[in-house]
Amino acid sequence: MKTYNIALLPGDGIGREVTEAAWTVLEKTAGSSGFSLEATRLPWSCDYYLENGSMMPADGIETLRSFDAILLGAVGWPQKVPDSVSLHGLLLPIRKAFVQYANIRPHRLLPGVQGPLRSDGFDILCIRENTEGEYSGAGGRVHQGTDNEVAIETAIFTRTGVERILRFAFEQARRRRGKLASVTKSNAQKYSMVFWDEITHGLAADYPDVEVTSYHIDAMAARMVMAPESLDVVVASNLFGDILTDLGAAIQGGLGFAASANINPDRSAPSMFEPVHGSAPDIAHLGIANPIAAVWSGAMMLEHLGETAAAEKVMAAIEATTARGIGAIPGKDKTDAITASVLSALG
Amino acid sequence: MKTYNIALLPGDGIGREVTEAAWTVLEKTAGSSGFSLEATRLPWSCDYYLENGSMMPADGIETLRSFDAILLGAVGWPQKVPDSVSLHGLLLPIRKAFVQYANIRPHRLLPGVQGPLRSDGFDILCIRENTEGEYSGAGGRVHQGTDNEVAIETAIFTRTGVERILRFAFEQARRRRGKLASVTKSNAQKYSMVFWDEITHGLAADYPDVEVTSYHIDAMAARMVMAPESLDVVVASNLFGDILTDLGAAIQGGLGFAASANINPDRSAPSMFEPVHGSAPDIAHLGIANPIAAVWSGAMMLEHLGETAAAEKVMAAIEATTARGIGAIPGKDKTDAITASVLSALG
Ligand SMILES: CC(C)[C@H](C(=O)O)[C@@H](O)C(=O)O
Ligand SMILES: CC(C)[C@H](C(=O)O)[C@@H](O)C(=O)O
Repeated sequence: MKTYNIALLPGDGIGREVTEAAWTVLEKTAGSSGFSLEATRLPWSCDYYLENGSMMPADGIETLRSFDAILLGAVGWPQKVPDSVSLHGLLLPIRKAFVQYANIRPHRLLPGVQGPLRSDGFDILCIRENTEGEYSGAGGRVHQGTDNEVAIETAIFTRTGVERILRFAFEQARRRRGKLASVTKSNAQKYSMVFWDEITHGLAADYPDVEVTSYHIDAMAARMVMAPESLDVVVASNLFGDILTDLGAAIQGGLGFAASANINPDRSAPSMFEPVHGSAPDIAHLGIANPIAAVWSGAMMLEHLGETAAAEKVMAAIEATTARGIGAIPGKDKTDAITASVLSALG
Repeated sequence: MKTYNIALLPGDGIGREVTEAAWTVLEKTAGSSGFSLEATRLPWSCDYYLENGSMMPADGIETLRSFDAILLGAVGWPQKVPDSVSLHGLLLPIRKAFVQYANIRPHRLLPGVQGPLRSDGFDILCIRENTEGEYSGAGGRVHQGTDNEVAIETAIFTRTGVERILRFAFEQARRRRGKLASVTKSNAQKYSMVFWDEITHGLAADYPDVEVTSYHIDAMAARMVMAPESLDVVVASNLFGDILTDLGAAIQGGLGFAASANINPDRSAPSMFEPVHGSAPDIAHLGIANPIAAVWSGAMMLEHLGETAAAEKVMAAIEATTARGIGAIPGKDKTDAITASVLSALG
């Protein structure tokens, strides 16, 4: 029997609860699908930092490299460790080290879920650049603490980095409804974003079957609320993708429903799957986090591992659950009850 | 009789139509309010660029400096001049040269307007930093045209710049419901945004009557859609403010309703008033642009000039118009019809 070795990184707060919930669903699915999943739980988190002075061991990246995939909960607990330290110590280095340059986030309403918009017939796939840009971590501060202090933060875009994410997005658009929206802010950011637009237009010739349109990030944020049904695939930089996918999560009913995959398309290193929501310290340990986003992320992991039928089973079980109203209304059902319902829908 | 000298900068596309509409309303209001408005029309625009090779004359900023205020339509027509050139040649230099560091954008539903959200009891005032940050225009490209090309764009934040916008926002919150949301992305941008957060927390002690909360931009975008009624004053950097205010425009029913003021709070130079929408070349000359955002911006100008009663008259006339359903549904009424209705509501 084929066995996949999965690194479980529950992380902080509700990350732990939803990762365990997702894992139960994935294990049961594997059992009925002719393969097996082996979990290695890694306790890297803000608590780990408080004990060890770092978010993960020095060889953390090397440890992760041997796995078939990584299932992550959420990282960050600002009351324990500043976010700027915890995220740059765990989540962001993994995305970069494993060249998980494509962060894929689907936005559509699950059956039975009512979103905040009056109109909700949309099906958007956001593709976010995941390794560079505004998240490069380059910058500094001078005259610290004085009236004259200046802080700078430099966004760095490489042709390789921009071209590969755009090609990836064009390919996705080709497999869906053939429409690609590329999001920049080239009217105000005349180096980075003009560069991105140029590469977009240069590549368009290679994908004559895809209709590509450039939007400014502000206009796109408005469009996701005013006319989400007009969108198919949306591609954006690291920061813009971050913003648009929380907005996508909002229109799909909330962060409890938003799944994501950090993909290394060349498969030269493991990919990582994680719900879009954060660690939500305020509701940690209460057993009320919605595990659906984590379970859906797990389905994306199965899909990536090539277990498409199993991934479809998980999605069907999620949809059967929300269609029955369970897990469909934020805050209504307990984590365990939603998980139990997904498990029973698996049959 | 007191006379205010106003520079009219209609700019491009529908900017021309809505500025003239707003001007008619403002003139009539002045006539019945005991002051007069004198317009000087300046043709600076993309057409001007095509004739003269620059968006405004070399002494453009000096020319503008002598006015009491500037009423602007919209700048940009990408088919004529790249946006990165037109905006950095006209709109952005004015905001910076005149230290219009506070960009104020109110988001609430006008009577009779149906927004895209199911729930719409919100009243948000966005305060956007308007002179630095991600719009600094600092950056460059190396190895241009090669596979090895790199583009960088540097966001620059000064303590002076951050502190003054935050103080301005705290003051606004104090005059409203006492709640301030400060928006950053300090979990990923560890220089600029951590700096902003530090200054926010440092200032909080000076405003014990204001409840200040920090949000990440992604979470705030979601919140504006999921729970806009929870927000009062929102303060953000240049880029984040840009994005959030288009989102604010969206939830208030569309860009046709979103007004803004670029304020120099020290009054050391003129302030500028402009609708949030752009030049919309696709509907230019058709006479179908909604002038409400421009008229509302004009009301903000009167307010800034100290003509509070006149500003209130304009707002009442706008509200009477949309309450009657005129101008309330995007695309339904012509510019002229909406303007005529506002004029008649003025009495
Ligand atoms: C936690 C944070 C650094 C992260 C990001 O901005 O990438 C998160 O918001 C996400 O979207 O995965
Ligand atoms: C046109 C553009 C440069 C401008 C901005 O981003 O500031 C506009 O979107 C706005 O919000 O006023």
